[in-house]
Amino acid sequence: MNTLGTHFKITSFGESHGSHVGCVIDGCPAGLAIDLDAIQQAVDKRKTNQSAFTSERKEKDIVDIISGVYQGITLGSPICILIRNEDAQSKDYDALKHVFRPSHADYTNQQKYGIRDERGGGRSSIRITAPLVAAGAIAKQLLQNYSSMQVTAFVRKIGSVALLETDYHQFDFNAIEKNMVRCPDDITATKMIQHIEETQASGDTLGGVIECVVRNMIVGLGEPIFGKLQSMLANAMMSINTVKGFEFGDGFDNANLKGSESNDAFTVENNLITTTTNHSGGIQGGISNGQDLVFRLAFKPISSISQTQHTVDIQHQKIEIQIQGRHDTCALPRAVPIVEAYTYLVLADAYLLSKLSKI
Amino acid sequence: MNTLGTHFKITSFGESHGSHVGCVIDGCPAGLAIDLDAIQQAVDKRKTNQSAFTSERKEKDIVDIISGVYQGITLGSPICILIRNEDAQSKDYDALKHVFRPSHADYTNQQKYGIRDERGGGRSSIRITAPLVAAGAIAKQLLQNYSSMQVTAFVRKIGSVALLETDYHQFDFNAIEKNMVRCPDDITATKMIQHIEETQASGDTLGGVIECVVRNMIVGLGEPIFGKLQSMLANAMMSINTVKGFEFGDGFDNANLKGSESNDAFTVENNLITTTTNHSGGIQGGISNGQDLVFRLAFKPISSISQTQHTVDIQHQKIEIQIQGRHDTCALPRAVPIVEAYTYLVLADAYLLSKLSKI
Amino acid sequence: MNTLGTHFKITSFGESHGSHVGCVIDGCPAGLAIDLDAIQQAVDKRKTNQSAFTSERKEKDIVDIISGVYQGITLGSPICILIRNEDAQSKDYDALKHVFRPSHADYTNQQKYGIRDERGGGRSSIRITAPLVAAGAIAKQLLQNYSSMQVTAFVRKIGSVALLETDYHQFDFNAIEKNMVRCPDDITATKMIQHIEETQASGDTLGGVIECVVRNMIVGLGEPIFGKLQSMLANAMMSINTVKGFEFGDGFDNANLKGSESNDAFTVENNLITTTTNHSGGIQGGISNGQDLVFRLAFKPISSISQTQHTVDIQHQKIEIQIQGRHDTCALPRAVPIVEAYTYLVLADAYLLSKLSKI
Amino acid sequence: MNTLGTHFKITSFGESHGSHVGCVIDGCPAGLAIDLDAIQQAVDKRKTNQSAFTSERKEKDIVDIISGVYQGITLGSPICILIRNEDAQSKDYDALKHVFRPSHADYTNQQKYGIRDERGGGRSSIRITAPLVAAGAIAKQLLQNYSSMQVTAFVRKIGSVALLETDYHQFDFNAIEKNMVRCPDDITATKMIQHIEETQASGDTLGGVIECVVRNMIVGLGEPIFGKLQSMLANAMMSINTVKGFEFGDGFDNANLKGSESNDAFTVENNLITTTTNHSGGIQGGISNGQDLVFRLAFKPISSISQTQHTVDIQHQKIEIQIQGRHDTCALPRAVPIVEAYTYLVLADAYLLSKLSKI
Repeated sequence: MNTLGTHFKITSFGESHGSHVGCVIDGCPAGLAIDLDAIQQAVDKRKTNQSAFTSERKEKDIVDIISGVYQGITLGSPICILIRNEDAQSKDYDALKHVFRPSHADYTNQQKYGIRDERGGGRSSIRITAPLVAAGAIAKQLLQNYSSMQVTAFVRKIGSVALLETDYHQFDFNAIEKNMVRCPDDITATKMIQHIEETQASGDTLGGVIECVVRNMIVGLGEPIFGKLQSMLANAMMSINTVKGFEFGDGFDNANLKGSESNDAFTVENNLITTTTNHSGGIQGGISNGQDLVFRLAFKPISSISQTQHTVDIQHQKIEIQIQGRHDTCALPRAVPIVEAYTYLVLADAYLLSKLSKI
Repeated sequence: MNTLGTHFKITSFGESHGSHVGCVIDGCPAGLAIDLDAIQQAVDKRKTNQSAFTSERKEKDIVDIISGVYQGITLGSPICILIRNEDAQSKDYDALKHVFRPSHADYTNQQKYGIRDERGGGRSSIRITAPLVAAGAIAKQLLQNYSSMQVTAFVRKIGSVALLETDYHQFDFNAIEKNMVRCPDDITATKMIQHIEETQASGDTLGGVIECVVRNMIVGLGEPIFGKLQSMLANAMMSINTVKGFEFGDGFDNANLKGSESNDAFTVENNLITTTTNHSGGIQGGISNGQDLVFRLAFKPISSISQTQHTVDIQHQKIEIQIQGRHDTCALPRAVPIVEAYTYLVLADAYLLSKLSKI
Repeated sequence: MNTLGTHFKITSFGESHGSHVGCVIDGCPAGLAIDLDAIQQAVDKRKTNQSAFTSERKEKDIVDIISGVYQGITLGSPICILIRNEDAQSKDYDALKHVFRPSHADYTNQQKYGIRDERGGGRSSIRITAPLVAAGAIAKQLLQNYSSMQVTAFVRKIGSVALLETDYHQFDFNAIEKNMVRCPDDITATKMIQHIEETQASGDTLGGVIECVVRNMIVGLGEPIFGKLQSMLANAMMSINTVKGFEFGDGFDNANLKGSESNDAFTVENNLITTTTNHSGGIQGGISNGQDLVFRLAFKPISSISQTQHTVDIQHQKIEIQIQGRHDTCALPRAVPIVEAYTYLVLADAYLLSKLSKI
Repeated sequence: MNTLGTHFKITSFGESHGSHVGCVIDGCPAGLAIDLDAIQQAVDKRKTNQSAFTSERKEKDIVDIISGVYQGITLGSPICILIRNEDAQSKDYDALKHVFRPSHADYTNQQKYGIRDERGGGRSSIRITAPLVAAGAIAKQLLQNYSSMQVTAFVRKIGSVALLETDYHQFDFNAIEKNMVRCPDDITATKMIQHIEETQASGDTLGGVIECVVRNMIVGLGEPIFGKLQSMLANAMMSINTVKGFEFGDGFDNANLKGSESNDAFTVENNLITTTTNHSGGIQGGISNGQDLVFRLAFKPISSISQTQHTVDIQHQKIEIQIQGRHDTCALPRAVPIVEAYTYLVLADAYLLSKLSKI
């Protein structure tokens, strides 16, 4: 229920204002040298308080690995990762204890469990992704022992501002980390930032689209029926807060194509089988075909707007609220490292399983 | 690996030209009266040879339940469902044994397993969904003991022909089964059929979009982190052949909205909490909120086109092929009952799990 | 719930008097050449009607593999095994429909599910092990690709007649199949048979002890905490009807030993690490150490005795019954191939998992 | 791999000399009031340094619940339990880094993983059971909301000293905690203590037998085939360090009985169905029948003896060792609370699953 994966398994735990958030990785093979700095860097990319339009909550997010690693090497035993919650301001939520914020998880959690930790969104806070990003960094280090697969996510669209080029080959991926919105085109990035700032000023929030590309993919990841690589990816990505859509390859554009336009012809280059196009986004029949894996995610605007909203409380009274607290105006820039991390988690899981496909 | 669900668990087996396709349902509670006719009707809806543009393979698809049901009542033991393959024409595939059809699963399966059953697509055939549709019908019957949830899928778009109304409340769901493409608007349906016929004549194929709506949803299905209801749905739907995209609620349109536009205000009607809009598509924080569940799926055009295509064979030789055999021109009409069935499978699984949420 | 294993997964289905019993193997790697004769031979060893003291139910028990194998080679897809029920005499059970036979599963199944298939014990019949023995034979063939592990079970004790030697090295394993009770010592076997015949004549039944030895074990099977090799074995063996005890190595005799007597000293032979004794039964810290795996199982006498017994019916009326039908007098001879099969299932599962232990 | 249970799931992590040992409980329903004192008491019962013959390692073993509980009530989210390692003396193990202690997990872990944490036994230390005992205490509190099931374990045998009465009804369970060996008969307890002291003086260790009884059992726990209650129990108990045998009801004594002697006749008392005897130990067909659950566990003497032993090191050199460090002379007294805790874990898991048996 709180576990992702079957062979490289991640069990998440923790609430936003509890003492820690964390996770346990079960299934990481022994003998992997852990680069703790690289893990911390990945986690730092999703931190709050990075820019004027991210939450001001100040968390150091120091990754603490308390088991499964000895003298820098994985033991094959479960790896427990803890991250301390240090800057929780729980009193911000006192007024919300009996209120259901629109499009938040308050109402559904209350109904499902009869109880909820209202402080900082409790279990439903984006904060619980912090240790999962650390887990993704370990998955990445694991995969680097076996392959050159390289995951890169970037912001394609924020609100009404979008990258014009549809083909990611047009972009310089090295440019992604050079601006606050993680968009590979500086001019577009500047427009996005301006769009966010104006929206923030009006007390509103923005959604958008993130695209993720995996280069140097290996053939054979994913299962033919259930456990298709796209199923594993969609399952993982849909668990990210505010993600509302997933498509790979040509995705929803497929409706505008005919079979003769959307099929990828096989050919041979340097005696290797490849395809002349990649409408399939790197997956055929649920299994990676060695072409770049390409998928996109739709994000809803963040539900915590500072404008006055109509809602109800636990006594079924209609009320008006203005949400206080510290919130992002746009989730996408901080979601980029989360998408990358979850992709690595899925790839590590699929990779380990693929080792058992043949005798 | 071939199992969907954790509490209402379906394990699929079978190849397209083996003796049977089938599945085992584990976790169906005892005491459920099974309506075999209703199961057969659901399976019949996905049969081949329904219209001029579906495969001519003639299969009776008789559902045979060989365990787990005694005197019409479930025993609580595993329910094994068999459907015989009767009209396999394996020799159609002799020429394809060493050929990788473009955008099919041939190449990836061969690489992953070192062997594949090339006859009729083997394990990757849409035929393996037949017993899963039967399982979905059992899931539906199970849920009817607990709730009034009602799943309805329909074709929203085929190629360039789409329903104009975005709000499904405009449609008469009783009209869906009245035309060959399962579109709730007769005029649009007629255009879609014409579009398919013209495409078929040119040796090409079409994709499109299916929408699925669950009315009378109950609150509390789905889990807060992993196992979100959207994750379970996306995971299941992505396992359907040629599905390339999943979105729920406003989905990819969220990028065009601000938080103030996409939030669903809570209100009270008849002393019950409800929302004034349903941008969330019935899910908030991964858990159903009682509003209609709404999601859409993108389908790639079927890869088996009859036009000549460039490809390679297992010896890395470039060749041209013309795919013979019996194929649909457009998968969507027959996919409608599959989408409905898989939705019931997910809901049954989520429902059983939800019974354990609280003491 | 009806699945054994996590990587080489067996899902069982079927009732004693339904049309078939069967199972699905999920996780068998592709590329394995299947020897169907060897599978049938394993299944034949557990057939009814082998001797004067086994059930007279006449079943051919023909193994039918309906998926997952193509041209004699595994595809990597699920292998469904069916065995038809042909000689069910359901009317024998009419009188038992509302009666709870002493020490049978009638009462507990009725209470748990509110319904049961009373015919032939329904789901709780030993008959459901037939396809599982076939699965075990496939597990054996899989393992033969990787190792020389050889599982041998034999009857150590029936009622008051037991093998005198405690060390299995004293026995000729080739003698096991030479008598009807599968005891490696002919003189003891003769006494066992006489004991069974006398007991049968008195309308009574016998239990006993089976020992199982795995030679040519490889090091490294089993997990350190949960999933210890002894846990996997005990879990599997306890699922065999009438098994009431499991011990490995010195087992319950450990209470009579001191640490200095029960420790196995490591030594080096031919530059390989080995132990001078094997009190541990081949497992240390949950993981196989390369010594012979040795365990023993206690079997209760079969509950279906033909003597008059006191019991109650579903209306809470006290009654007397005499169980009719066709029953073994002693389960152990036919249990030997079941124990061997389940051991192979566990070893295959542990073996596949062990391939992922290290990078 | 490090998880026990399917519905009330415990994932263990931690090494003996890492910063913490811990576990995550996933699947505990929301709304349970947690009695932290009772949890701490259960954990205290398994602490070291309780008597002259337990390890002198001084650990406070303070239970720290860092997630899943809010204001004393479970949230339905995962419960992470941490226990700090405070008195690790890692240098005691420096000399053992390259040595394989006889009958320890050193050799098998080294072979399986190519690396091990030698300090204090690393992952294979009995210390990892501390948080699992805490989890068991939570399972107990959960079950108390639904039933009166009461688990009691006691020491039946240590070395050559055993309780004479075979029927536990003869014992006063209140006496168990009144002596250092947790034996319900004071005279026997005194002899056991003397036996331990003499053995300790000779540098040796002792094993024995623990019996566990569950009173006020409810009917219907356990599954008919795999997942039998005895399978679940055996699986869990076999994961306890040094347990080498499991039997329930008459266990291995069944070989000495005939069916007419080992069957439990059903009868009616106070209009409730019950049995006149309990040879079955409370389980029939894998499912609890409402009678007391009774099982016994065999324990090997502790492998860490202080006498000189022959062994080998990682370079395949034969050496002699004398094990230093702080070790129990007899594991059984401290194992009693572990056995009770694991029984509660199994019962909670089986209980939750049983809620889904019928519609």
